[in-house]
Amino acid sequence: MENHTHRADSIWADVERIRAEAPLVHNITNYVVMNVTANALLAIGASPVMAHAEEEVAEMTAMARALAINIGTLSAPWIAAMFQAGGVARRHAVPIVLDPVGAGATTFRTATARRLLEELSPAVVRANASEIRALAGDERGTHGVDSAHSSEDAAGAAAALSDRTHGAVVASGAIDLIVSGGATSRVFNGHPMMAKVTGMGCTASALAGAFAAVNPSASDAAVNAMAVMGIAGELAAEGARGPGSFLPRFLDALYLLSESDIRSRLKVREP
Amino acid sequence: MENHTHRADSIWADVERIRAEAPLVHNITNYVVMNVTANALLAIGASPVMAHAEEEVAEMTAMARALAINIGTLSAPWIAAMFQAGGVARRHAVPIVLDPVGAGATTFRTATARRLLEELSPAVVRANASEIRALAGDERGTHGVDSAHSSEDAAGAAAALSDRTHGAVVASGAIDLIVSGGATSRVFNGHPMMAKVTGMGCTASALAGAFAAVNPSASDAAVNAMAVMGIAGELAAEGARGPGSFLPRFLDALYLLSESDIRSRLKVREP
Amino acid sequence: MENHTHRADSIWADVERIRAEAPLVHNITNYVVMNVTANALLAIGASPVMAHAEEEVAEMTAMARALAINIGTLSAPWIAAMFQAGGVARRHAVPIVLDPVGAGATTFRTATARRLLEELSPAVVRANASEIRALAGDERGTHGVDSAHSSEDAAGAAAALSDRTHGAVVASGAIDLIVSGGATSRVFNGHPMMAKVTGMGCTASALAGAFAAVNPSASDAAVNAMAVMGIAGELAAEGARGPGSFLPRFLDALYLLSESDIRSRLKVREP
Repeated sequence: MENHTHRADSIWADVERIRAEAPLVHNITNYVVMNVTANALLAIGASPVMAHAEEEVAEMTAMARALAINIGTLSAPWIAAMFQAGGVARRHAVPIVLDPVGAGATTFRTATARRLLEELSPAVVRANASEIRALAGDERGTHGVDSAHSSEDAAGAAAALSDRTHGAVVASGAIDLIVSGGATSRVFNGHPMMAKVTGMGCTASALAGAFAAVNPSASDAAVNAMAVMGIAGELAAEGARGPGSFLPRFLDALYLLSESDIRSRLKVREP
Repeated sequence: MENHTHRADSIWADVERIRAEAPLVHNITNYVVMNVTANALLAIGASPVMAHAEEEVAEMTAMARALAINIGTLSAPWIAAMFQAGGVARRHAVPIVLDPVGAGATTFRTATARRLLEELSPAVVRANASEIRALAGDERGTHGVDSAHSSEDAAGAAAALSDRTHGAVVASGAIDLIVSGGATSRVFNGHPMMAKVTGMGCTASALAGAFAAVNPSASDAAVNAMAVMGIAGELAAEGARGPGSFLPRFLDALYLLSESDIRSRLKVREP
Repeated sequence: MENHTHRADSIWADVERIRAEAPLVHNITNYVVMNVTANALLAIGASPVMAHAEEEVAEMTAMARALAINIGTLSAPWIAAMFQAGGVARRHAVPIVLDPVGAGATTFRTATARRLLEELSPAVVRANASEIRALAGDERGTHGVDSAHSSEDAAGAAAALSDRTHGAVVASGAIDLIVSGGATSRVFNGHPMMAKVTGMGCTASALAGAFAAVNPSASDAAVNAMAVMGIAGELAAEGARGPGSFLPRFLDALYLLSESDIRSRLKVREP
């Protein structure tokens, strides 16, 4: 695990820019996690907005500095809005993050996620191993929206997707793999309690939007977001009795995150 | 209150199975409580999924081990999805839990809840006394989604509904009545603070789904779920200053729930 | 800051009535904040209900003692329901609160918010300075749903809106301006942490509904609701490490709010 100093510098620079600039992150996301992701974006210093009506998504995305699309509670009108917002994001060079929640679980989700991937070429795709494999065409189903696979099992699929999007692809799990341009970074930060709280993956995707808003490298934005998620998760787990007390601590940790938290805790393996 | 040992054995066996098997519970529920119910299902050890699009509910339900339908923020497309998912659940012998939130408050809710009841014959119906009475045809209105009645006032209505569904019917309140096959169990666990937190009833219904996923007796699943809700509520209320601090503690209590918590606190009266 | 005794009397009388009467507040609000606003209404003692289907909003509003309309995650079917519920509220003299979230950010939101304002003449409009200015026809855009302006910058716009609605208009911020009948009150209570938690503005609007349900003066209801928000925010911030631990404390503070909290902390300037 070399290069920690450079990576920590990069993370901290991004956090400082997010806090200084409060970039607007437009989220078209699922009902379950909207509150948590909005709070996480506010806690890290970004400015979240949620909007899904076809009548307004184009205007909203055009103002935003990142667009986070999450298919967790999908329906036809929302899909239309996702493509419309995505098209605007591409024309305005607004980075797109795609979270293909539950891809592989139903035909509808898999097909929608693949179309979003093909048409929008997201800067960052963040998903668990099962979803990454389903997106890449490996048809074994998911168990609900949780992954039955370790992230290493999705290394090949993530690389294949990254070849297609020319962006970063994150297979998250106990270890997060970030694949971009044929190279793979690994983030070892995090805590098992995060799997017991709904919306932690979705929150990672939303945070990737905040980092992509201030960092032109999709790969760096993805690695930095996953590292911040993991470190905040570790800080939150200290003293948490369970997932209920974990969540407020997690938001506090994002809000209070310091340079020394990053320098002392960061565990990455760079390509 | 006899039979405590057998009941505690049954509850603990269910909790251990949920934790070991992480059964997938498909929720078609209301916007207000989605986050809380997903977190409660995760905390007890189940695997929640929320999906409501007609394009995918059939596939999702076919994979699930329980289907929890909650009409709290109803609209026509969601009703169509509820019937579609419910039909699949019946064909696949996936147990259905129905939470008729606000039945009695508007014609639309009452009529929808009754149709769901008639067509789906849910394994478990869980509602407050006003809703149970409205479902059974006692027309006195509800006060919003809270009940103006004690659960004992709904004993007759619950029995009538159970005769129709051949399942368990829970009239929840300070005391929870569980009526099944002409017999009535009562759970005395719980805490008044639970009425000051939104979604506690909906969470009880979702947990009933998790218990029905591992216990083939609808009656036992319903009693066991209500006992676990009540015991976790008591544990959460200890040291909570108000409803805000109650909720994280409630999720922690579900997560940490031990056999001795159940044995030392259980208060039921069996038929 | 004179008249504190009278104002504190008025606030405490409202809180006691809310707790005694548990008025039903019908919310047609956004997905992000539904859970938080329902919990805040329960914590202060009101009875929240969320319903948005055209098939039932008329019946629900007719039963309610206040209607809170919030456009945070707008779409066409919800707009139809807002107008339908609003029309019923007017015919039944149910006070309406309008929260025009993001007015100014997109044409769709601005136009919808203006139509709601014109057709419904809400008893209370509560918004940040940017939104108030957008509603009044000052076209400078907002930054997402947060305000780039101080509330004093919206004093003229708020007065213009109040002339049109004949109700109270709140421009909230570090200082809350409440304009009604040509007179302006200012509430100085609150804490900067409130801006780091999603839905605090929406919660203020929902609470204004609870106060309007028990206080026939829209102006008093608005001032009293903003004072209670601010005081609960101050109480919650004491000991909170960040926005995550703030929110449970805020709900506890609403639940535990005492007459002496109000008397010792109230900071208002009356007209």
